[in-house]
Amino acid sequence: MPRFLHTSDWHIGRLFQNVSLLDDQLHVLKQIKSYAKEHGVDALVVAGDIYDRSVPPAETVDALSAFLADFTAELSIPVILISGNHDSAKRLRFGAQYMSGSGLHILGDILNVATPVTLETDSGPVHFYGIPYHDPVEVREAYGCDVKNYDEAHTYLARLAEQARTPGIPAVLISHCFIDGAEGCDSERQLSLGGADRVSYQPLQEFDYVALGHLHGPQYKGADHIRYSGSPLKYSFSEHRQQKGVILVELTDDGVIWEHLELIPKRDLRVLEGTLAELMEQGRRDPRQDDYILARLTDTQDLLEPMSQLRQVYPNTLELERTNFVISRGSQLVADVSSRRSEDQVFKDFFRQVMGGELTDEQNELLFEVITEARAGMEEQG
Amino acid sequence: MPRFLHTSDWHIGRLFQNVSLLDDQLHVLKQIKSYAKEHGVDALVVAGDIYDRSVPPAETVDALSAFLADFTAELSIPVILISGNHDSAKRLRFGAQYMSGSGLHILGDILNVATPVTLETDSGPVHFYGIPYHDPVEVREAYGCDVKNYDEAHTYLARLAEQARTPGIPAVLISHCFIDGAEGCDSERQLSLGGADRVSYQPLQEFDYVALGHLHGPQYKGADHIRYSGSPLKYSFSEHRQQKGVILVELTDDGVIWEHLELIPKRDLRVLEGTLAELMEQGRRDPRQDDYILARLTDTQDLLEPMSQLRQVYPNTLELERTNFVISRGSQLVADVSSRRSEDQVFKDFFRQVMGGELTDEQNELLFEVITEARAGMEEQG
Repeated sequence: MPRFLHTSDWHIGRLFQNVSLLDDQLHVLKQIKSYAKEHGVDALVVAGDIYDRSVPPAETVDALSAFLADFTAELSIPVILISGNHDSAKRLRFGAQYMSGSGLHILGDILNVATPVTLETDSGPVHFYGIPYHDPVEVREAYGCDVKNYDEAHTYLARLAEQARTPGIPAVLISHCFIDGAEGCDSERQLSLGGADRVSYQPLQEFDYVALGHLHGPQYKGADHIRYSGSPLKYSFSEHRQQKGVILVELTDDGVIWEHLELIPKRDLRVLEGTLAELMEQGRRDPRQDDYILARLTDTQDLLEPMSQLRQVYPNTLELERTNFVISRGSQLVADVSSRRSEDQVFKDFFRQVMGGELTDEQNELLFEVITEARAGMEEQG
Repeated sequence: MPRFLHTSDWHIGRLFQNVSLLDDQLHVLKQIKSYAKEHGVDALVVAGDIYDRSVPPAETVDALSAFLADFTAELSIPVILISGNHDSAKRLRFGAQYMSGSGLHILGDILNVATPVTLETDSGPVHFYGIPYHDPVEVREAYGCDVKNYDEAHTYLARLAEQARTPGIPAVLISHCFIDGAEGCDSERQLSLGGADRVSYQPLQEFDYVALGHLHGPQYKGADHIRYSGSPLKYSFSEHRQQKGVILVELTDDGVIWEHLELIPKRDLRVLEGTLAELMEQGRRDPRQDDYILARLTDTQDLLEPMSQLRQVYPNTLELERTNFVISRGSQLVADVSSRRSEDQVFKDFFRQVMGGELTDEQNELLFEVITEARAGMEEQG
């Protein structure tokens, strides 16, 4: 029966606390390739947010190009991808018409939602319809229709795809959107303020499978076959308990069967809790010292440069939190440091609320410098 | 016999004095398409500087993608292009492996100079070798060789292509470089200071034809078959006397035959000389009022807002020069205005000499504002 891998939100080129994740990303992409080969799938589906930014660094573009070329050359398995809110649809789809003949299908134009990619499988053809990320204005302009919000816009496009279906041919819908009621986490960029970005799952129900992207935690919403694969890596500490992977989907005569295939990161994101002494001791015996660490220190007394100490055993310690630190010095600054959320995170949340977007890389760097300086100053005083 | 069109330096997305030239560019690209159809060529060759910037605006990327898709879909004529010094090779070549099967050959990797694109023509196969723009460091790193300058680097790559040739199969070399002794103009970006960017033509002689890009004026250098097509549009007033076009190349048993096919711009770049009154009079009867104008005013007396007056008849007047303006007021500022080169040009030359590069769009805009303000101030005083 027709089988494919469903993944999304690669965010190639993403920085995590100013550390490039490209190596980590290529590490899990290799595993995706192995799974594709092992399970002899008919396609690899990537549901948007291919890159982390509309203008990704040139090295990132090159790395993705090399991965994809290698994937299709070696496996002869086509790749179908749509653009997400982090991608520039126009940049991503350059030359798309030339590529589709060779197995790379880039669906980045909402005007083409009713034109499926047809894959010939051993069990007959399968149609893949793609709804690239869009906002309501784009849909109004492209179709001259009167859709007022995200939900109406998405429903409009989903209906166009639905109406274009050929009876008897299985149809998969690929979309990058926020289904109402699904669960977000810290590493997704809001599409719109106050939940106005939510769309309903009901118009998607009739497709044989719906491959969603945008949310980084694997989950389904509304029905078992309307599913987010989640990102292949943890992109925030709020995801530290998630099991990342790809979804192996099989379309059978009795409905869809799916399986979550685990991806093993090169460096995991972990949250460790304990006293500094305990974590130092644990770190010395830890076979995964290179993991990205958020350390929650339970010490109640002052500590001398805890970050530098921890980094001796966990070099990729990225955040420190003090959970039991009693404010005894009366300094408001010290109190802020002791809060459970890092300053970094507090500021980013604030910025997101007020500005409705994420910090740029430059702003991130600046914030990082300011916080580092402030911390250094406080440690000197402390 | 095998025939192809040779063009280069499209610089899609270029601004001329802060005016977008995209419409003008699409206008001449259409003519190139007509020529390709009319002459039934086997290929369209574009010798670099496809875009004007390494990160072109998304609309520009979309416009080029649409043109190329339309070109090959309608004519079934393959396109071969290499990256120039204005392009980001890594961005341009994304997905190149997927496109070559469908007729778009993007040669953007110096590691592939010995791998030709093979075109099957009615008279047999032809090989096209591409040398994308590169600096010596890139060649040293890619090949671990010891080339000290632009000339040695280019010669190294040209020899690799030469050695890869198959006896009996005609070979065309495409390169983006500055051949020593050729003539530049104001709209090319220097590759290196003080002429260190020049390369020799001798290592290219054995190819059946050498399709060059970088210089914007059509010309040959060293031998008749080593040729710059020039840009399809005038990109500076220094080019106002050039006849822009594309080259129709035919490879015959007795050598190469070429023909210059003229391109008619939507709006020409012209330099007009005369008194303000004369130019105003001429403008009223001019069928090409929309052309981009540099006006050289021969008036000897003060003029009241000559730019605003001229723009009533030539709305795209972009520069004013005063050629006979006698400095009678004793003001150094007035003297500067009367020089034959515009302030804009003087500053840009200065910047190029000192910084070795062109102004960014933002800097250009700022310069434009400053000059406009200064001019307004002087006109008030005058």
